[in-house]
Amino acid sequence: MTIYQEKATQATALLRELDLDCWLTFARETGQHPDPGVELVLGTSLTWNSALLFGRGGERVAIVGRFDVENVRLAGVFDEVVGYDEDLRAPLLETLERLAPRQIGLNYSVHDHTADGLSAGMERLLRELLHGTSFVERLTSAEALLGRLRARKTPSEVERIAAAVATTEEILAWLTPQIRVGASEAELAALVHGEFARRGLPSAWDWEYCPTLNTGPDSPLGHVAPQPHIRVQPGHLVHIDLGVRQDGYCSDLQRMWYVLRPGESLPPPEIQRAMHTVVAAIEAGAAALRPGVAGWEVDAAARQVVVAAGYPEYRHALGHGLGRACHDGGPLLGPRWPRYGTAPEQLVEAGHVYTLELGVPTPAGYLALEEDVVVTNTGCRFISSFQRELWLR
Amino acid sequence: MTIYQEKATQATALLRELDLDCWLTFARETGQHPDPGVELVLGTSLTWNSALLFGRGGERVAIVGRFDVENVRLAGVFDEVVGYDEDLRAPLLETLERLAPRQIGLNYSVHDHTADGLSAGMERLLRELLHGTSFVERLTSAEALLGRLRARKTPSEVERIAAAVATTEEILAWLTPQIRVGASEAELAALVHGEFARRGLPSAWDWEYCPTLNTGPDSPLGHVAPQPHIRVQPGHLVHIDLGVRQDGYCSDLQRMWYVLRPGESLPPPEIQRAMHTVVAAIEAGAAALRPGVAGWEVDAAARQVVVAAGYPEYRHALGHGLGRACHDGGPLLGPRWPRYGTAPEQLVEAGHVYTLELGVPTPAGYLALEEDVVVTNTGCRFISSFQRELWLR
Repeated sequence: MTIYQEKATQATALLRELDLDCWLTFARETGQHPDPGVELVLGTSLTWNSALLFGRGGERVAIVGRFDVENVRLAGVFDEVVGYDEDLRAPLLETLERLAPRQIGLNYSVHDHTADGLSAGMERLLRELLHGTSFVERLTSAEALLGRLRARKTPSEVERIAAAVATTEEILAWLTPQIRVGASEAELAALVHGEFARRGLPSAWDWEYCPTLNTGPDSPLGHVAPQPHIRVQPGHLVHIDLGVRQDGYCSDLQRMWYVLRPGESLPPPEIQRAMHTVVAAIEAGAAALRPGVAGWEVDAAARQVVVAAGYPEYRHALGHGLGRACHDGGPLLGPRWPRYGTAPEQLVEAGHVYTLELGVPTPAGYLALEEDVVVTNTGCRFISSFQRELWLR
Repeated sequence: MTIYQEKATQATALLRELDLDCWLTFARETGQHPDPGVELVLGTSLTWNSALLFGRGGERVAIVGRFDVENVRLAGVFDEVVGYDEDLRAPLLETLERLAPRQIGLNYSVHDHTADGLSAGMERLLRELLHGTSFVERLTSAEALLGRLRARKTPSEVERIAAAVATTEEILAWLTPQIRVGASEAELAALVHGEFARRGLPSAWDWEYCPTLNTGPDSPLGHVAPQPHIRVQPGHLVHIDLGVRQDGYCSDLQRMWYVLRPGESLPPPEIQRAMHTVVAAIEAGAAALRPGVAGWEVDAAARQVVVAAGYPEYRHALGHGLGRACHDGGPLLGPRWPRYGTAPEQLVEAGHVYTLELGVPTPAGYLALEEDVVVTNTGCRFISSFQRELWLR
């Protein structure tokens, strides 16, 4: 069974679990407009307007342009693959009449971008095609199905994520001796890009700022390309945030080095205190992470450690789902801020994979770590090798 | 001026040309959900919910999550870059009140997928954010602006497309001696992938079927990965469809070889007749291509040559826009079939770049060519080196 067939089997089971009669992915040019339905259960691109239908009775029908037919057949996920030349309306209506679903779940979501593949134009087109039928009133969101389908990793998905993490850790071990006084952020990032390229791996997010790499207190934070004019100096914290996409699955790690000043054999006490606070906060988050807990509760457990130690709160979520996408949707281990919508209210389940990430400011630069974990039946297990001490240079 | 700044200048002029007061790109996680507004005028990714506003008075305001602020500033396109932590509603409303637009154009389109970046979930979110204000009634589609902005290539855009085409022709010239009896489709495609990788170039569309490569009459047509069990034989036509993305712009070419049988010094007459028909049809299309003509008229000119020669009509459009995307939207040089919507009705303008592509069946395999052209003030100019004769092996 391919990983796509595994996910398709999960999808059918989810229709029953959620009492949804039909899941409809309606997409076009998915090479440019990725859709979660296509990405999770098909794994090949669709060019013209296409409809992928899952019925709760186990039906799987793909209606696609004639040039995509062969490719969709080869994927081996859909029992029926219907090709068309000019217009998909007739086969779409015929299929819906046959399935006679009470509700038709579509790929849109206000709060979960990974469940939001349907475009505003394609939604209008679908409503036009169904105009005058009762199917229009049966349209609803499939976000619950998509969220669970994406978040509940099968064992082979966890294996691929773990393999991407292991590769990333190899690259980090290789990078450590290159971190020397005088090296610029841009030079170090270029070395990492060289390793990605040598291994034939895309970056987990935009190449330009994967990795982000910051040295010292003057480096701009956030999604910024590493700078050519900022160089490693003694007394700097060097921070990297990186990930690869390997076999379709992502890693996402942050790691820290400290560059000793002449005469130092350890980082200054306030840097060590910052490191231990970040480590303790991640441990508190990991201790709170188990099936049944809401995302915001896990974030609160870590956030409290940071605040209690007298540091400012990190201005983001403690963790996000990790999988095919680096920001993989599903429950968010984040605070209940308006911009996070309902994602922090969602419940953690066994098989979910999350990042745990946060940082605090120091006079030597921002100190942040990010680990990757999988939720077990009773808690969570680290997929990454938890960095508990600063790496010294 | 960067290419993004050039396009931003065009966008402001288009607001006036189209009598539109404001263009609003509303997007998130654009690394995974590309948006035409972000891709054309910004060139960097946005993570959290973001609003990019162009006012017809020349105003350019970006409202983005705090970690994207620095990156958006560095792009140098937006005069105002507003960062937020928890919620973008307040700065969005403040900006709209200041601009006081009569209409607000959004990135959605039923028929042009390249103008359809707004997701169904993000549209719902925007309507929630604007709920209770009169801005909700002012929302409209910016598809006319997006179509023209994308289709009207600046001279530097044409230069980049031409450079991508030249690179592709180098790869084709390098490939020709590798096409030998016994080589499989998959082996030949792997050689092309090796060249892409060596040059550090992504494929213009999905890696798995860019190139598509077909040898002989038994090879499956369409968007199918080249097959390991189908091998070049004497008497085969070998067909390739490929493109690269270089400096952000795509090429898209189809080329043909004929593999001589023992004793042959030329392809059989019916293969030559097929080749000359395809060449003549592309020439007829090119002759019809000039500013002011509708897309379907150009397609009809080529299609008529194929039909008059007694071949079946090709089941696709003669040509599509070519640019940042391989299927770049804008007017389509295609027949007035329902699935093409209004795209074939749109008018050709100087500065547009199109493919011209079609094929006919033969007993030796499908014979198809694809050329790339730019529209001039009076007609069109070939960017590719028009293949007028079969390449012999």
